[in-house]
Amino acid sequence: MAVFLASRRLSGGSTASLLAGSLRYTTCWRSYSTSFREERDTFGPIQVPTDKLWGAQTQRSLQNFEIGGERERMPEPIVRAFGILKKCAAKVNMEYGLDPDIGKAIMIAAQEVAEGKLNDHFPLVVWQTGSGTQSNMNANEVIANRAAEILGHKRGEKFVHPNDHVNRSQSSNDTFPTVMHIAAATEINSRFIPSLKQLHTSLHSKVKYGIDRVMCTLPRMYQVGDLCLFKSNPCICTSLRFLLSSNISEMPLEQLAQGGTAVGTGLNTKKGFDVKIAAAVAEETKLPFITAENKFEALAAHDAFVETSGALNTVAVSLMKVANDIRLLGSGPRCGLGELILPENEPGSSIMPGKVNPTQCEALTMVCAQAMGNHVALTVGGSNGHFELNVFKPMIASCLLHSLRLLADASASFEKNCVRGIQANRERISKLLHERIGYDNAAAVAKKAHKEGSTLKEAALKLGVLTSEEFDDLVVPERMIGPSG
Amino acid sequence: MAVFLASRRLSGGSTASLLAGSLRYTTCWRSYSTSFREERDTFGPIQVPTDKLWGAQTQRSLQNFEIGGERERMPEPIVRAFGILKKCAAKVNMEYGLDPDIGKAIMIAAQEVAEGKLNDHFPLVVWQTGSGTQSNMNANEVIANRAAEILGHKRGEKFVHPNDHVNRSQSSNDTFPTVMHIAAATEINSRFIPSLKQLHTSLHSKVKYGIDRVMCTLPRMYQVGDLCLFKSNPCICTSLRFLLSSNISEMPLEQLAQGGTAVGTGLNTKKGFDVKIAAAVAEETKLPFITAENKFEALAAHDAFVETSGALNTVAVSLMKVANDIRLLGSGPRCGLGELILPENEPGSSIMPGKVNPTQCEALTMVCAQAMGNHVALTVGGSNGHFELNVFKPMIASCLLHSLRLLADASASFEKNCVRGIQANRERISKLLHERIGYDNAAAVAKKAHKEGSTLKEAALKLGVLTSEEFDDLVVPERMIGPSG
Amino acid sequence: MAVFLASRRLSGGSTASLLAGSLRYTTCWRSYSTSFREERDTFGPIQVPTDKLWGAQTQRSLQNFEIGGERERMPEPIVRAFGILKKCAAKVNMEYGLDPDIGKAIMIAAQEVAEGKLNDHFPLVVWQTGSGTQSNMNANEVIANRAAEILGHKRGEKFVHPNDHVNRSQSSNDTFPTVMHIAAATEINSRFIPSLKQLHTSLHSKVKYGIDRVMCTLPRMYQVGDLCLFKSNPCICTSLRFLLSSNISEMPLEQLAQGGTAVGTGLNTKKGFDVKIAAAVAEETKLPFITAENKFEALAAHDAFVETSGALNTVAVSLMKVANDIRLLGSGPRCGLGELILPENEPGSSIMPGKVNPTQCEALTMVCAQAMGNHVALTVGGSNGHFELNVFKPMIASCLLHSLRLLADASASFEKNCVRGIQANRERISKLLHERIGYDNAAAVAKKAHKEGSTLKEAALKLGVLTSEEFDDLVVPERMIGPSG
Amino acid sequence: MAVFLASRRLSGGSTASLLAGSLRYTTCWRSYSTSFREERDTFGPIQVPTDKLWGAQTQRSLQNFEIGGERERMPEPIVRAFGILKKCAAKVNMEYGLDPDIGKAIMIAAQEVAEGKLNDHFPLVVWQTGSGTQSNMNANEVIANRAAEILGHKRGEKFVHPNDHVNRSQSSNDTFPTVMHIAAATEINSRFIPSLKQLHTSLHSKVKYGIDRVMCTLPRMYQVGDLCLFKSNPCICTSLRFLLSSNISEMPLEQLAQGGTAVGTGLNTKKGFDVKIAAAVAEETKLPFITAENKFEALAAHDAFVETSGALNTVAVSLMKVANDIRLLGSGPRCGLGELILPENEPGSSIMPGKVNPTQCEALTMVCAQAMGNHVALTVGGSNGHFELNVFKPMIASCLLHSLRLLADASASFEKNCVRGIQANRERISKLLHERIGYDNAAAVAKKAHKEGSTLKEAALKLGVLTSEEFDDLVVPERMIGPSG
Repeated sequence: MAVFLASRRLSGGSTASLLAGSLRYTTCWRSYSTSFREERDTFGPIQVPTDKLWGAQTQRSLQNFEIGGERERMPEPIVRAFGILKKCAAKVNMEYGLDPDIGKAIMIAAQEVAEGKLNDHFPLVVWQTGSGTQSNMNANEVIANRAAEILGHKRGEKFVHPNDHVNRSQSSNDTFPTVMHIAAATEINSRFIPSLKQLHTSLHSKVKYGIDRVMCTLPRMYQVGDLCLFKSNPCICTSLRFLLSSNISEMPLEQLAQGGTAVGTGLNTKKGFDVKIAAAVAEETKLPFITAENKFEALAAHDAFVETSGALNTVAVSLMKVANDIRLLGSGPRCGLGELILPENEPGSSIMPGKVNPTQCEALTMVCAQAMGNHVALTVGGSNGHFELNVFKPMIASCLLHSLRLLADASASFEKNCVRGIQANRERISKLLHERIGYDNAAAVAKKAHKEGSTLKEAALKLGVLTSEEFDDLVVPERMIGPSG
Repeated sequence: MAVFLASRRLSGGSTASLLAGSLRYTTCWRSYSTSFREERDTFGPIQVPTDKLWGAQTQRSLQNFEIGGERERMPEPIVRAFGILKKCAAKVNMEYGLDPDIGKAIMIAAQEVAEGKLNDHFPLVVWQTGSGTQSNMNANEVIANRAAEILGHKRGEKFVHPNDHVNRSQSSNDTFPTVMHIAAATEINSRFIPSLKQLHTSLHSKVKYGIDRVMCTLPRMYQVGDLCLFKSNPCICTSLRFLLSSNISEMPLEQLAQGGTAVGTGLNTKKGFDVKIAAAVAEETKLPFITAENKFEALAAHDAFVETSGALNTVAVSLMKVANDIRLLGSGPRCGLGELILPENEPGSSIMPGKVNPTQCEALTMVCAQAMGNHVALTVGGSNGHFELNVFKPMIASCLLHSLRLLADASASFEKNCVRGIQANRERISKLLHERIGYDNAAAVAKKAHKEGSTLKEAALKLGVLTSEEFDDLVVPERMIGPSG
Repeated sequence: MAVFLASRRLSGGSTASLLAGSLRYTTCWRSYSTSFREERDTFGPIQVPTDKLWGAQTQRSLQNFEIGGERERMPEPIVRAFGILKKCAAKVNMEYGLDPDIGKAIMIAAQEVAEGKLNDHFPLVVWQTGSGTQSNMNANEVIANRAAEILGHKRGEKFVHPNDHVNRSQSSNDTFPTVMHIAAATEINSRFIPSLKQLHTSLHSKVKYGIDRVMCTLPRMYQVGDLCLFKSNPCICTSLRFLLSSNISEMPLEQLAQGGTAVGTGLNTKKGFDVKIAAAVAEETKLPFITAENKFEALAAHDAFVETSGALNTVAVSLMKVANDIRLLGSGPRCGLGELILPENEPGSSIMPGKVNPTQCEALTMVCAQAMGNHVALTVGGSNGHFELNVFKPMIASCLLHSLRLLADASASFEKNCVRGIQANRERISKLLHERIGYDNAAAVAKKAHKEGSTLKEAALKLGVLTSEEFDDLVVPERMIGPSG
Repeated sequence: MAVFLASRRLSGGSTASLLAGSLRYTTCWRSYSTSFREERDTFGPIQVPTDKLWGAQTQRSLQNFEIGGERERMPEPIVRAFGILKKCAAKVNMEYGLDPDIGKAIMIAAQEVAEGKLNDHFPLVVWQTGSGTQSNMNANEVIANRAAEILGHKRGEKFVHPNDHVNRSQSSNDTFPTVMHIAAATEINSRFIPSLKQLHTSLHSKVKYGIDRVMCTLPRMYQVGDLCLFKSNPCICTSLRFLLSSNISEMPLEQLAQGGTAVGTGLNTKKGFDVKIAAAVAEETKLPFITAENKFEALAAHDAFVETSGALNTVAVSLMKVANDIRLLGSGPRCGLGELILPENEPGSSIMPGKVNPTQCEALTMVCAQAMGNHVALTVGGSNGHFELNVFKPMIASCLLHSLRLLADASASFEKNCVRGIQANRERISKLLHERIGYDNAAAVAKKAHKEGSTLKEAALKLGVLTSEEFDDLVVPERMIGPSG
């Protein structure tokens, strides 16, 4: 029996297939349990690995949903959010009569979950029941067993009960949407916004710096900068600034479903529990969570997630343009535009010496494409919820958290390993201008214009090096600086 | 020559194919020009139908972009927005020295465009140059010729010049993004928001009414209503209310690119023109337009459109759920849920008498799917803009306006022809409850509970008609009304 | 009454709004009916414009689905396919006892529909009942009235009956999927494949020609061509060739649902009707249609359309790359790659003389983005069909036909107005090479290599103009021609 | 230094943040290296963990692309495909002169990679250089070091050289697309097709069984089955059968890019290498791989992947419908359709006893939504490739493999844990029919019809229990069985 279950625990194949095919995709799994204890739910008894804290319902889900392997486990921010929520629930439940010893033990155990210390005990994948019930039970079971241990009891004895104690006044119907909101809001505030702000700042300073430098060292060359740097980069900055100011952190993610319990009815919970738990989560996370105005809506639809995903889609569109512009401006050395020099972080092409591959741009644009795809998946999931309960919840959560993580990390990597080190290709820019009016003329014109505060054209006409028409044909960029007086 | 060009004007086939194949898709085109005048641009002379106001550049685009046929013409709101913009431009240009007679004539002609009176003179399709230049020239040419006529001059003489007068201080680069914003904001405010508000109001009143009615005529049956109506419908309302409050009308569409001219430089325009024209458009439309902070960004990216499209995507997701829920609740009469009776607007199935097809739900859900698809197209277009100029502008405009129009019209149709007439299926709901506890018991329990203000369970236990366990098995919905004391 | 209905017929507004607001979007509508006749269906009598052939059910749909305006009318290929189908149905029904006089009149009337002569009598929009029933009734009513006229009877008298005669042995459930297949297959074969084949041929010849020309005039310079033309263009050709060979025309569109009638049961039809009508349609269209193996599936799902749309999505991806590559290679004249010279079809930028805007590339890429979006809309629609009947049929049909038309037309336009006239920018390519090894050296090396049939490198080493290392640094492209011996 | 790099290896934070924040997402990482060796590439020396086989370029990528964490590692099928490819390359290279000792050691080491034994040595994420170069170097470095060990040499000494030996006659430009094809084709054949075939078989037998059973126990009740089971389920089967017959395994994935080397030129490789290596891979995998006709295309575009993804999208659409239909038919027990009884695999709702949640349907539909989203991401990536090299390769590979894995696993889970155990709800179906014609009448009619081989209607008329009209009104389903004589 134990042997059979050991293999089930891995990827559900038979013992034979464990050794043959099933092993194929489970090589990352390092420690194989050799002993089991019995856990039990309303469905009956089931064997669970001794060294794991989870219980019967988690074990059943593991065996019934062998989909995608370990990579598809519920995202860590969800697991951590369960820790936060269960800690807060225990705190509030003590106000409503939960035994204080049990309550405190739950709080300690839940804190360990919130800190990611018990991640190994959350083996369930995203592709489970569409309400996320099984992950809620996973959290209840792990916290109950851990709290029992803290109080000196054994796993599986249910001295601390997953339902009666840990899940008290809660339902999977309201806990899962609640942790979705906690996880997304936390990721946005602690990871996404900081990364994008840093990128914005870096791009902005680069533009300023780039222009200034070009102006200092290559007087009057700035019009070329104008043509190819100024014109494109500021809009990069504006796009990002705009996005940042649209304040994703103030999105309706702040409304928590907790207290809605089964299909939003509030059944089995206490009056005021909803308000108190939202306040407790707000205090714990330092984020402005409040209880949802309409609990039915909070369970039945995920428009807040669809909308947030729409905002991420806009960010992806904007970053795609930024990365593509920099990639093209940095293309070269021979057949490309070559107006920017990108930092070299790794060996380049062995065949084309001098070619710096815009690898960070490539990583970022791939991430943007993935975010656009995740947005569609989330949209399909959001639009398919029927009646009281949208049952694409884990997928919706996973898509949003995936995009948030990738966009944040890729922006940070792009900023650190690319933007910071970008330099204007002075040689190339200089060459472009010299081709047009010759070095001496360019220098003389630039000097005069600088000294007299006049336009380049005025200076060129005064010096007689060009007629008005010739100038317009050649030094077009000059005309592009701004509206005429 | 004239004959050849007549056919070109239609769908560009040869004279022979005009009569054969090419006619296939041009049957809606009713009046065939038989005479032509010569118009001229920097490219040379070209024949234009005498009865049309457009000029050389429009004619070239017609011949060079025979894509999709008449249905693909630039959306009417864009044409009207060009009327508004050109009227305002003339007004401001007069302040900067434009001849008042010409300026006034342009204003009159542009007003006709704004009113849709000259729609027949805007034949260009969406699938043209990606900057929308050709539609800008179409507007310039039509207004110039019409203004010349007003002043007693002939078409084609350029007494009023398309570029020097009508397009003065403007560039295709800034006019097209400007009309995109005017068109979208106008549609949102005059068509989209009103339709959705009406739908929201109607849904909300229906829920209230439905529950009240059920409560009056079938006392204590409301728990069934609770189970199947209350729980799903309010969330519909909440979703919509939320969307409305997210205030799409305050989106960054208010920032106008006008004044940026070529690639955002402001070249060839006057100081202050940008602020003045935004103010003029604001006055004309009664919408809070302002000049764009960064003109480069306003031309190079369309994040405002991508973001607005994301909001429409959220609306589509929400409406898809509303329509699907109503469709399923109204399914029947035999194998369906049958809890709602939908109004009958047309002959139903000849095979299944009594079956009311949820045709309005079907139309609305199809529209939602189209809006989700348009959102992806717009996202792809938005992400592909390079450097100074996003060149997916007409497609981006077309997608957003298409979704706006469809969602607005379908919501209005759904409200008027479906939601207003929805009734709760009392017979079905009654039957569902009777099956569980019998009519007399149900009535007695309901009466007692109502009188004593107690829960149904308490009343049932007191009356002794059910044990606690039996009650829980049978009358589950009762438990779902709300949190316990 | 008549006046009221006249306005309804247009866009359903009130008489007052007809003159004010409603007119806004109906300006293309040229002829207003002034008289009406009474038509009747099981729902009762209704006023229909005298000059229109449609009947009661069409009129009801017109009034109940005021969504999107005239542009949203059912695509013309669907209307024409109804003509083909109804003609064939009459033919087969005569074999099963339909009165020959009536049968023949129906065939004549249906032929007129198939030729597009009665398009004005098909006013219904895509956004109607999801089964397409109303468009089927539109076809039945128009053909019945027209056939009656042919036989000397009046409209509305039902001498030829829309249901009993025209729709005989059919149901909306099977006619609409049947016309979807006929319309799509016809468009693919008569419009899409020819356009793409022509584009493929043209691109292929251009590559060959381009290379040859460069080789003739600039001996041994072809390696530059190699680097920038050969490497990119052949893959364009391969992509297209591959797509063409994947033989979209043999897709499962050939299976017709006709004969399935209501929800695929074959109810009310005759044995053998399904096989005969598929044969008749095949004969009429010269396309290999057969009757669907499983009629339930043919009504309930549209996987054939989803799959075909997936193929169009692949074409869009491929064409997007082709157009983008040509756009970038043709960018210039100053800051771009400038390796191709694109034909000039219209006045270019007034600000940047010499700049040829890649307008055809822009139109094509916009079309590709739209096709990708339509694919998502169609996917959403395809995935939402429940039970016996997918009720996103008109939207699914509209999306596919829209993409087919746009891709075909844009490819044809791109081929005719861009690809045909593309030239290699010899000056630029020459300059690129000269920069590397100098003109005289380049010429001498090229001449020697050509004469001796050796590689450029061998020639350069023999001439002593370069060491092996220098050569590798400079003339890298030479090394890229192919695998070494 | 070593300490610094240890932290870098994990997730690149500072030593301080390693202990605090950075640890947050790295808790799965179990073994921390404490010692390092120096590896070296053209960029210089770098510290690598002693216990890892990778080299300098892998280490740099690890440090430069800290995006998404361990879950985002290159999918395992790609790693295994690298093992297959490098093994075959060594084999072919020995024919071209590679030292046999080194060649054989490479083959052994590569075989270990192919078997997944060295997965821990492939730490790079998907979000790296868009050409997949770094993963190719990861494979080269790991295999070189492992082969050197096999030959008794130390890691880092380059006795076996990653470039000169393992990557011989190859380039990242051609290896990565090659492994993409190997990985996808292998997954399709070994995982995807078998799972879908099993599901197809199971669904098909279930329909047959269901109908037979209903027919045996409730004679003539099958028309109800007809109405609700037969009509929907066969189309499920047809959809799947159709998909299977469309033969995804014969897609153009069979064409391998190997031999194209840098940008498709074949530079640095040997004549015939391309054909030989394709043959070797074919032999190794037992799949019909051949060398790509056009190597440029094989590197520049990924239309084969876009097309395959389109096929998966069709599968997702089809499975979404299957799962939704079963979910709705199994809804209940009270307010649902209740015509199917789904197997119970886990504790159900604590609030609604008897309710079996369709959890497998939910998991499957979530997977389908994700596959639709991945298809869009892949489409965006496929459409953005410019010139010689599409640089969205790792994302494209990841999306396809993700969808393949999820669809295969979810189909298998759905088949095993849901479809196999589905039963028709005889009680419900019986009740539906009794409501219509009463039990005795139904039984009598059914018996007579069965005995005489007549239709139910004929039997009912003969028995005089119903008039023709009454019958049509009531027993409509009877009429739906098929075409009349």
